[in-house]
Amino acid sequence: MNADEFRRRGKEMVDYVADYLEGIEARQVYPDVEPGYLRPLIPPTAPQEPDTFEDIINDVEKIIMPGVTHWHSPYFFAYFPTASSYPAMLADMLCGAIGCIGFSWAASPACTELETVMMDWLGRMLQLPEAFLAGEAGEGGGVIQGSASEATLVALLAARTKVTRRLQTTSPGLTQAAVMEKLVAYASDQAHSSVERAGLIGGVKLKAIPSDGKFALRASALQEALERDKAAGLIPFFFAVLYQFPVHSTVLRSYKYTQKFIFFFFTVVATLGTTSCCSFDNLLEVGPVCHKEGVWLHVDAAYAGSAFICPEFRHLLDGVEFADSFNFNPHKWLLVNFDCSAMWVKKRTDLTGAFKLDPVYLKHSHQDSGLITDYRHWQLPLGRRFRSLKMWFVFRLYGVTGLQAYIRKHVQLSHEFEFLVRQDPRFEICAEVTLGLVCFRLKGPNSRNEALLERINSARKIHLVPCHLRDQFVLRFAICSRTVESAHVRLAWEHIRGLAAELLGAEKE
Amino acid sequence: MNADEFRRRGKEMVDYVADYLEGIEARQVYPDVEPGYLRPLIPPTAPQEPDTFEDIINDVEKIIMPGVTHWHSPYFFAYFPTASSYPAMLADMLCGAIGCIGFSWAASPACTELETVMMDWLGRMLQLPEAFLAGEAGEGGGVIQGSASEATLVALLAARTKVTRRLQTTSPGLTQAAVMEKLVAYASDQAHSSVERAGLIGGVKLKAIPSDGKFALRASALQEALERDKAAGLIPFFFAVLYQFPVHSTVLRSYKYTQKFIFFFFTVVATLGTTSCCSFDNLLEVGPVCHKEGVWLHVDAAYAGSAFICPEFRHLLDGVEFADSFNFNPHKWLLVNFDCSAMWVKKRTDLTGAFKLDPVYLKHSHQDSGLITDYRHWQLPLGRRFRSLKMWFVFRLYGVTGLQAYIRKHVQLSHEFEFLVRQDPRFEICAEVTLGLVCFRLKGPNSRNEALLERINSARKIHLVPCHLRDQFVLRFAICSRTVESAHVRLAWEHIRGLAAELLGAEKE
Repeated sequence: MNADEFRRRGKEMVDYVADYLEGIEARQVYPDVEPGYLRPLIPPTAPQEPDTFEDIINDVEKIIMPGVTHWHSPYFFAYFPTASSYPAMLADMLCGAIGCIGFSWAASPACTELETVMMDWLGRMLQLPEAFLAGEAGEGGGVIQGSASEATLVALLAARTKVTRRLQTTSPGLTQAAVMEKLVAYASDQAHSSVERAGLIGGVKLKAIPSDGKFALRASALQEALERDKAAGLIPFFFAVLYQFPVHSTVLRSYKYTQKFIFFFFTVVATLGTTSCCSFDNLLEVGPVCHKEGVWLHVDAAYAGSAFICPEFRHLLDGVEFADSFNFNPHKWLLVNFDCSAMWVKKRTDLTGAFKLDPVYLKHSHQDSGLITDYRHWQLPLGRRFRSLKMWFVFRLYGVTGLQAYIRKHVQLSHEFEFLVRQDPRFEICAEVTLGLVCFRLKGPNSRNEALLERINSARKIHLVPCHLRDQFVLRFAICSRTVESAHVRLAWEHIRGLAAELLGAEKE
Repeated sequence: MNADEFRRRGKEMVDYVADYLEGIEARQVYPDVEPGYLRPLIPPTAPQEPDTFEDIINDVEKIIMPGVTHWHSPYFFAYFPTASSYPAMLADMLCGAIGCIGFSWAASPACTELETVMMDWLGRMLQLPEAFLAGEAGEGGGVIQGSASEATLVALLAARTKVTRRLQTTSPGLTQAAVMEKLVAYASDQAHSSVERAGLIGGVKLKAIPSDGKFALRASALQEALERDKAAGLIPFFFAVLYQFPVHSTVLRSYKYTQKFIFFFFTVVATLGTTSCCSFDNLLEVGPVCHKEGVWLHVDAAYAGSAFICPEFRHLLDGVEFADSFNFNPHKWLLVNFDCSAMWVKKRTDLTGAFKLDPVYLKHSHQDSGLITDYRHWQLPLGRRFRSLKMWFVFRLYGVTGLQAYIRKHVQLSHEFEFLVRQDPRFEICAEVTLGLVCFRLKGPNSRNEALLERINSARKIHLVPCHLRDQFVLRFAICSRTVESAHVRLAWEHIRGLAAELLGAEKE
């Protein structure tokens, strides 16, 4: 395909994309296909000679679309939002064309420098403490990671390296293995898959800090755990605090394959922020404990973080000043298409030192000066795309007020759904509605709610996934799509009520 | 921005992309900017109210482009190729529009299933042993990772989990820490950053297997290392074999910031495949040793792998049948835009079990059946894009013959450059030219070649990076761009010769 054909096909694709997104409401949100549906529709080997573009675009409708779960349908209320906006898509086109690999400053200076500045922009939108910003001479700074899981892992590895070096300085004979055997990481929720994974990969123990009766994390519980473990000869070094969003607070442990579809059960281990979605004000309590004990504090607000650009939600982040690293995902709720996970650290040398065995390296590096950033030392992979273009396009084409309006609209829609649920005495709200998620259920046994969910997802008009809250099987209604409006929410609710009435009617028979 | 404006702006962007790539030859391949150039050109905070699209697109030319290293310029011969093609860009537009997160089968069945089938297509193009393919009932299969580094890390973690479980089965009292302390991973090249990092992250010892005088890896050297380590009470469990491509065979250890630009020194530790780029036929020797000793064999052909779709290069992969996992990057040399790193395993349960503490999990999973694939268990992050669309578009719009022709053209161009260098008695070729890389230098001291490189990169007409081979400072001429032609190679050579003449003239004065 030459440039001329790309001009033609590219414009056709722009129209296809616009048609798809404008018409997405009319598509069935969850597909009808069975596992293994696709293979018989596609030849077993690649063609020897080229197919035509018409062949492919026809096959997109025939083969791909019937198997797509339409995450951007206004009837998609499952999992969590994943960002999609036209400005981000335009930026991605440019990113693909430039196609540079920004592993070092020299490999494409604009790629590195725009990222640093965009992370400062975003940090200022969130009113992050100045220490997290790169600025002109700061020791901190931001980096785009692929996912919150990667950010957690990178933070844990940086903390592991830092504590190991510190101990080896005072006890030169100490081996890395001897240190690692004693390291303990803590999480506010043991079941969170990203922290569990990071601990597993990093080869360190991971312990949950028990929450109190109200599922809040208390400084006393953390202090107690630290004292107990230190007395047992262990070395506390890392504490991950997660803003919970049921699904994110959960491990996708098992699924049930029913006749027509698959859905997930999310196991929530009782912990802060799960009952009251995203409400979380314990950083101010546990932060000083971490600080005093020299424990690295990592704060992960993967979903909730976007809301903190609104002054009325910013208080939820109070205490972040005690953190060593902070992360959230603009690719969830800030209109920047996946992937764009924003991570900040107070000391960039903690990250850049994490992947090097030889501490001498750091002394030779110019990185301390803040003059040159080589992002390959901030992340797991070597290569990286020019992802900051997406942030630049989105922030400029929406403006801060536009982004705030977007967040507020979603929050307002979730409250609208909450209001509707509360009008119906057969239903109950299971968790305080703070941001864009409503956890609700039919009063009564779990089996009734399982049956309701099965009816909902079998009908295919809307898509939901469940979670468990305190042994209750709960339906999650997440405001996801960029184009979801009050009308969709009300239609969804009428649909759910109708299915509930059928179900309760059938129960009586 | 609504759909109508996206239709208009999207089409403008298609033209911008086509204009950029058609006119890229006229742009200076390496930028003139100094570190820190960008920040003063951009406001310190995001705008409160939206900017216009015209503002942004103007700023792309004013602010971004002056700082871009143009990886797709036909005068870019640095680092390694990174793929770029129009079909991949079209697929990426579609990927952005669908915008699904394919962490599980149900989260978007088409996203998962197309990936499985495309990895089979690609595996068949490479004539991979059937055991690596998913097929309808295979135990193996492929997955798209973000980078070769991630693939290496995932393989190492899978191997670590596998050996730990095996040992814990026979010695139930054994702790994970006790096992990890004794684990040893081996690499054919100790300095390779991705293996070094994987070992560091995984908390295991990493040792280099010494190569013989011809930089070839012998089974005897591996067997000797294994015997010695086992006798010392250690547990060999993982061996990473890397197809070397200087840069990939190297750690970007240090850089020098000169007045006008930054370049890298690549430290190559003598090992197989470095002198004779990508030539490597030792898998047949070391494979059986790994097999006999129960050591996981991971083969990484990040750059070279693409060439194996040509029958005349396929013999370089002989012995892959002994590997447990194999990886290469279509995003380097197979026209699939970054990121797309292709990884196969013979037993998918080895991967899916690697990130789970609880082996019982596997028993509950349907994954063994091959019916349902949940790719989140195959990788480090949770989220993932619909990257297989790029493979599908590229493979179909080029056809296998088109892809083979593309590889062959690059190999032919590198031989053409080699031929030109060999005509000039002032120069020497430093390594056998097998695929798309020529390592060459001026005869004489390293300082002369450093000076030559500085002249080349200061002139900004072409872009090269150096490497070290056997203590020699060597210039790397990598065939990179999709649009590079014989004329560009010849112009580059005349340019280099001219600068060499100036340099040698100045030396005489």
